[in-house]
Amino acid sequence: MILVKAGGGAGVNWDGIAGDIAKLRAERPVILVHGANALRAELSARLGVPVRTVVSPSGISSVYTDSESLDVFLMAYAGLANKRIVARLLRQGIQAVGLTGVDGRLWEAAPKKDLYSVENGKTKLYRDNLTGRVEKINVCLLWTLIRNGYMPVLCAPAVTPEGEIVNTDNDTAAACLAAAMKVRTLLYLFEAPGFLRDADRPESVVARIPRDEIESLMPSAKGRMQKKLIGARKALEAGVREVIFADGRTGHPVRDALAGGGTVFA
Amino acid sequence: MILVKAGGGAGVNWDGIAGDIAKLRAERPVILVHGANALRAELSARLGVPVRTVVSPSGISSVYTDSESLDVFLMAYAGLANKRIVARLLRQGIQAVGLTGVDGRLWEAAPKKDLYSVENGKTKLYRDNLTGRVEKINVCLLWTLIRNGYMPVLCAPAVTPEGEIVNTDNDTAAACLAAAMKVRTLLYLFEAPGFLRDADRPESVVARIPRDEIESLMPSAKGRMQKKLIGARKALEAGVREVIFADGRTGHPVRDALAGGGTVFA
Repeated sequence: MILVKAGGGAGVNWDGIAGDIAKLRAERPVILVHGANALRAELSARLGVPVRTVVSPSGISSVYTDSESLDVFLMAYAGLANKRIVARLLRQGIQAVGLTGVDGRLWEAAPKKDLYSVENGKTKLYRDNLTGRVEKINVCLLWTLIRNGYMPVLCAPAVTPEGEIVNTDNDTAAACLAAAMKVRTLLYLFEAPGFLRDADRPESVVARIPRDEIESLMPSAKGRMQKKLIGARKALEAGVREVIFADGRTGHPVRDALAGGGTVFA
Repeated sequence: MILVKAGGGAGVNWDGIAGDIAKLRAERPVILVHGANALRAELSARLGVPVRTVVSPSGISSVYTDSESLDVFLMAYAGLANKRIVARLLRQGIQAVGLTGVDGRLWEAAPKKDLYSVENGKTKLYRDNLTGRVEKINVCLLWTLIRNGYMPVLCAPAVTPEGEIVNTDNDTAAACLAAAMKVRTLLYLFEAPGFLRDADRPESVVARIPRDEIESLMPSAKGRMQKKLIGARKALEAGVREVIFADGRTGHPVRDALAGGGTVFA
């Protein structure tokens, strides 16, 4: 089984991804997790609801989610992006079923109500942050769908044990999902050719990174790349055979990645 | 089996509906179809995208859907309403799974690209209307979920055989679904005490309507009530035992309706 996590950047080639997955599914089951960053940013701007990114004292950036931004999140991810992607896969003959982590408690998350943010050198505390870390996957629901010929197309938000909808990081959730479903390959597609030694130089892409070197890359990684590295490490520790970071903008993003494009962590 | 179609009006008591369904599920399977009119109207206003209702030459009103209003529809129905309702049901201990008609081709619809509208006495033609009439239900997907303990929570949009997302009327789709799933009872909950002899007088609610009288009620019915009457007739013709129109605003909307509140068509 392969888990493809495709980012929500505007440059990601969804036609290519859908076509590649249609071919790949003849060989092995596929689960797709998708983002919707660009759609969310656009909708946030139209509705005048800012996306507030905060940086924790340990240097990890996250989005602070209040009830209004959670609504925007639901609209962009569960509403627009998920259903557009499902329709695109249907057109490729794939029986795609779109779900969020809320549905059937697919992604159960521990709430992180308090969020510490470093702003102008001072640490500030945000309360009532509607975010959580995915810790439990409803593998039964996924297997039920897969065994009956359906391909799950998943995205945040997640749900707490108390049934509260919470935002969650798709990249770390994908890693948790890959571990729970015991997938062989976890593929992260995004708008860069792989893991870059220098984030500003696409030609600095690293072809192969041993798992015990991931930790040392963390301090230099920026923004969402940190979450992907954490995800890669977690997935490998949990038994995923290989994690690949690759370019979602090529003509055949999934095929190219599996043919050795991008960065392989193993 | 019972199919509950709950309207998307602001006054509908979702806590009551969720609690009633939690009890009812101990006796028989439940499928829920929901609207989101109030949420859509609010979002349309915020985004400056008008909801354009047109009246056909035969007097049936529908919403004209272009690509922008389809996006608003997806955001309000698939994004906000569906996931909020699913979370509410999870909190009642129900393993709810939210899907649209697009997912797994659950609701396949014949496109109605041309829409005729009577405006100021003249008939106008709208082309490229992104609407369809649901004609085929993926009963396999629904049975797969139900047999594994999940409760489907469904809403528009639907999908065409070509994989295009189209808006559809939830009320007529619910009737098609009730027929395909061979449910015993189809319950429409909305913001009135049942079918009213006089739409302006709540006390004019009719307790019982024989199926062969439905046709004669059509000319006097307004707006969405027409769609519900068409739905009721179709469902009964297809073998559904009873259709109930009842108040979604009471303390226990489902329980009250099944105890004889509202209007029974049989």
